[in-house]
Amino acid sequence: MSEGAGTGGTRRFAVIGHKGRMGHAIATAIEEAGHEFCVGVDLGGDPEPLLGQCEVAVDFSAPDGLAANLKAAKAAGIPILIGTTGLEQEHFAMIAEAGKAIPVLQTGNTSLGVTLLAHLVREAAARLGPEWDIEVLEMHHRMKVDAPSGTAKLLGEAAAEARGIELADNMESGRHGFTGERREGSIGFATLRGGTVAGEHSVIFAGPQERITLSHNAEDRAIFARGAVKGALWLLEQEPGRYRMEDVLGL
Amino acid sequence: MSEGAGTGGTRRFAVIGHKGRMGHAIATAIEEAGHEFCVGVDLGGDPEPLLGQCEVAVDFSAPDGLAANLKAAKAAGIPILIGTTGLEQEHFAMIAEAGKAIPVLQTGNTSLGVTLLAHLVREAAARLGPEWDIEVLEMHHRMKVDAPSGTAKLLGEAAAEARGIELADNMESGRHGFTGERREGSIGFATLRGGTVAGEHSVIFAGPQERITLSHNAEDRAIFARGAVKGALWLLEQEPGRYRMEDVLGL
Amino acid sequence: MSEGAGTGGTRRFAVIGHKGRMGHAIATAIEEAGHEFCVGVDLGGDPEPLLGQCEVAVDFSAPDGLAANLKAAKAAGIPILIGTTGLEQEHFAMIAEAGKAIPVLQTGNTSLGVTLLAHLVREAAARLGPEWDIEVLEMHHRMKVDAPSGTAKLLGEAAAEARGIELADNMESGRHGFTGERREGSIGFATLRGGTVAGEHSVIFAGPQERITLSHNAEDRAIFARGAVKGALWLLEQEPGRYRMEDVLGL
Amino acid sequence: MSEGAGTGGTRRFAVIGHKGRMGHAIATAIEEAGHEFCVGVDLGGDPEPLLGQCEVAVDFSAPDGLAANLKAAKAAGIPILIGTTGLEQEHFAMIAEAGKAIPVLQTGNTSLGVTLLAHLVREAAARLGPEWDIEVLEMHHRMKVDAPSGTAKLLGEAAAEARGIELADNMESGRHGFTGERREGSIGFATLRGGTVAGEHSVIFAGPQERITLSHNAEDRAIFARGAVKGALWLLEQEPGRYRMEDVLGL
Repeated sequence: MSEGAGTGGTRRFAVIGHKGRMGHAIATAIEEAGHEFCVGVDLGGDPEPLLGQCEVAVDFSAPDGLAANLKAAKAAGIPILIGTTGLEQEHFAMIAEAGKAIPVLQTGNTSLGVTLLAHLVREAAARLGPEWDIEVLEMHHRMKVDAPSGTAKLLGEAAAEARGIELADNMESGRHGFTGERREGSIGFATLRGGTVAGEHSVIFAGPQERITLSHNAEDRAIFARGAVKGALWLLEQEPGRYRMEDVLGL
Repeated sequence: MSEGAGTGGTRRFAVIGHKGRMGHAIATAIEEAGHEFCVGVDLGGDPEPLLGQCEVAVDFSAPDGLAANLKAAKAAGIPILIGTTGLEQEHFAMIAEAGKAIPVLQTGNTSLGVTLLAHLVREAAARLGPEWDIEVLEMHHRMKVDAPSGTAKLLGEAAAEARGIELADNMESGRHGFTGERREGSIGFATLRGGTVAGEHSVIFAGPQERITLSHNAEDRAIFARGAVKGALWLLEQEPGRYRMEDVLGL
Repeated sequence: MSEGAGTGGTRRFAVIGHKGRMGHAIATAIEEAGHEFCVGVDLGGDPEPLLGQCEVAVDFSAPDGLAANLKAAKAAGIPILIGTTGLEQEHFAMIAEAGKAIPVLQTGNTSLGVTLLAHLVREAAARLGPEWDIEVLEMHHRMKVDAPSGTAKLLGEAAAEARGIELADNMESGRHGFTGERREGSIGFATLRGGTVAGEHSVIFAGPQERITLSHNAEDRAIFARGAVKGALWLLEQEPGRYRMEDVLGL
Repeated sequence: MSEGAGTGGTRRFAVIGHKGRMGHAIATAIEEAGHEFCVGVDLGGDPEPLLGQCEVAVDFSAPDGLAANLKAAKAAGIPILIGTTGLEQEHFAMIAEAGKAIPVLQTGNTSLGVTLLAHLVREAAARLGPEWDIEVLEMHHRMKVDAPSGTAKLLGEAAAEARGIELADNMESGRHGFTGERREGSIGFATLRGGTVAGEHSVIFAGPQERITLSHNAEDRAIFARGAVKGALWLLEQEPGRYRMEDVLGL
C-alpha cells in the first residue's frame, strides 16, 4: 500500500473514468463518506503517476484501458475495484493475474443490497424443490433499452446455479401469445418499463398455495456509487487476491 | 318474470353448462348465497321446458347453444346472464335482440372487483397526461397457456379507451432483448406464471418521480361464480335491456 | 392578472417562504419547468412591492404571514397557491374572501398523484359494500415523528366521506395485542418507518376472496414542488375563485 | 419404526386432535399426498393402542394430552410431529426427554415457506448493518383477534437473534400519534386486517436509498397441514432426536 495511507481516517481515492455518469456519482459518494477524491484518470493518459498519489483506485471506464490500469495499480501497490462492464475472457485473465500482487475486486453490480439479494435467492432456490416455480420481475425507467436488466439476469443466474441448471437453457422471457403451460424447472422473466424508476427487482418462488418473494428496490442510482466506495474501503484491509462483492458482506 | 317469483327471498336459478368447472362453481355460489339451484341445462337438450321452471338463468356453456338459450329465456320470460366466452359478431347481435324482450347481461369477466378496477383505470388514464407511462402486470398459475390474460387485456383496453387510442396499435407485450427506449403512449404488458396463483393484476401509472398502482388480487376462482350470482340477482330487478357488469356496480 | 403576463411562455413566480426546504424545492421546480423564479419573499418583510413584479405567487411559509400575503396578491392582481400547513378557521375565512378577487388554490397536499389517488379511493369506497374492509398502509423514512401520515389520513377521509361516515369514529390505528375481531365498517391504519423512503401509501379494499389495492409511491419529495408549480400554472388560466388540487385534474 | 413400515410407499398416519379444524386439514393433506389416515385420536381416550397401528403421529390437540401422546408414541416406537400451541416449560422438557427414544419434531409453524423465510431473514439481518431498519408487516382476515400474528413475531425473533438483541426490548408495534423519530436498532411491526386473507408477511430492510423486502404469501391455510405431512414423512427417515422445521429443509 502506498506510503502515508491512514488507517481508519480519510482515504485517498483515484477514480478512473471520472467523467462518466458513474464516475461523477463515485466522486460524490467518496466525499459524502468523508474521504478524498484524490485524482481523476481519463482513458488515454498514463494512469501510473496518478495512481501513485492515491491509496485505492475505482475503475468505471472501458475494457480497453484495463491492462494499463491494472499495471498502474500494481506499480503503485494499491488495491483496485473494477466496475467496468463489457469485459471478456482476456480481461478476466488479467484480473486474476493482478490479484496475485494486489487486492482486486471485479463485479458487474456494486450494490450491496443486490449482492445480498442474490445470496438469498441462491439459498431459497437450493432449499425449495421443483414444485416451486421461479420468476424474476424487474422495472426500470422508460429510457432503458434492453430487457431483462443485467441485474435480473444476475439474479436468474444465482437461482439457476443453486438448482444446478444452465440459465440459458431454462430462461422463459418475453411471454406473449400462446405459450403453453409453464415448463417445469424454467426460470421466467418479466419486464416493466416506465417513468423514472431507478430499479426494482423481485424473485418470486411460487409453490402450491404459497409464495416467497424476495425484492430489492433502489430509490436512487447513487447506491451503486456508494457500494463501490464501501467495496474499495473494504479492499484496503485485504491481502492481495481476487475478490467479489459477496466477500465484502462476508458471504 | 315467471309465476311465483319471490321478491327478496330465495330465487330459483337455471345453470346452463352446469357440468363445466364454472358451472359447478356457480351451483356452489348459488347455494352459499341462500338461493336454489333449480335446474342444470346440458348443451344438446331443449332448454325451454327447463328454464320455464326457474326465475333467472346463468349461461357458461358454448357459443353454439346461445341462440337456443336466448330463445328459451325469452319464452320463459326470465333474465339471463351470459358468461360464455368465444362469442362473435353474430352472437352479439342475438344478445342485443334478446335485450328488447328480457334483461340480458353479457360479460367477459364476472368479478365485481375486476369490473371496478377497470373503471378506476379508466378514470386514472383519462386524468393523467402522456408523461405517465401505463404498464399492465399479471400473474397466474403455471397451467395457464396464453399471455397476457384476458383480464389484463380488458384493463389495457380500459386505459386505451380513456386515452382515445387503439390498444392494438400501442401494445408492448413480451419485451425481450434490445427493445429501444419505451415508446411514448404505449401500453406495456408483462406476464408472470407460477404455482397456483388464482389471478393477480396491476395497472401501473409511472410518472416523473411518482407512481400510481391499481391492483386486483383474486384469492380463489370462486369470486367469478359469486359475481355471476350477484349479477343475476341484480338482473331480476331490471327492465328488459342489454346490460354490462359495470351496471351492477352503478358505474 | 398583472400587465405583461405572457400566455404559454415563461411565467414569473414569487416564492413566499423561499428559504425553507419546500421553498428551495419550488425554486428548483420552477426552473426545471422552464419558468422564472422572479422573487423570494421572507416572512417579516412587506410582500406587496415584491409580488407586484410577478405573475403568480406560491406560498409555503407560515400561517402568521397569510393575511399580508393574500393582501399583496390581491393588490398585485395575481393568483396565489397556498401550501402552508397549520391553517385554522380564521385563515380559511381569509382565503375564501380573497377568492372573490383573485384565483386562490389552498391545499394540504400538492402532489397530483396523491390527489388522483384520493379521488379513486372515493370512487371505490362508494361502490364497494360493507363486506369490503378498508385499510390504509403508509411507509416513510426513519425521521418522521408522527403516525399515520397526513396523506394517510387524507386518504382515510376520502374513504370515510364516500361511505357517509366520520373517520374519527371509525379509525383503527396502531393495532397491538388483543384487538378482538375487526369492527365492521372501521377504517384501519398501519404505519411503517425506515430508511429514506420518501413516501408510500396504499389503500386496500379487502373483500371476500378478493382485494383491490390502490397505491401511490413517491420516489422523491420533489413531486410536491412540481405539483405546486403545475397548480400555479393552471391557476394563471382561471377566473377568481377558491380552488382545490382536484380542480387542476378536472375531478 | 413400527413393523411393516413401507419405505417410500404409502405411510399410515395417526392424527391426534383429528376433530379440530387443523386435524381435518391434516386428514385431507395426508390423502392428497397419497398416504393413509390410519386412526384419529380424541383427547380423553387412550392413545396407546391407536398409535400402535400407525407409522407416524401428528399431534394438533391440546397441551393437556401431550404427556400421554408422547408416552404412546414411545410405546409404539413411532415418530411424532407436534404442532399443538400453548406449550410451556414443562412440555418442552417432556419433548426433549421423548427425543431420546423417538424422532420428535415440535414447531409453532408447520409452513415450509415461513420456515425458509425466517432463515432468509436471519441471513439478511446478520449481514446488513444498523443503518438498515427492520420492519415486519402482516395482513390477516377480519376474524383474527390478536396483533401482530405469531408468525410476525417469529420473523421478528429471527431478525433480533441475528442482530444479537432481545426482541422484547426492541419491538415497536402499533405506532399511532406522536412517536418521535424511529429508534435505531428497533424492529417495527405493522398489522393489517381485512377480508379473508389467509396470511401475508413481509420483512422489510430499509437502508439508505435502497430496500430489501422478503415476503411470504399463503393462498390457503392448507399449506400448514401440507407442511405438517411433509415434516412427518421426513421424520420417518430420522434417528431419534429433537427436531425443528428448519431441519426438514436442511437449514
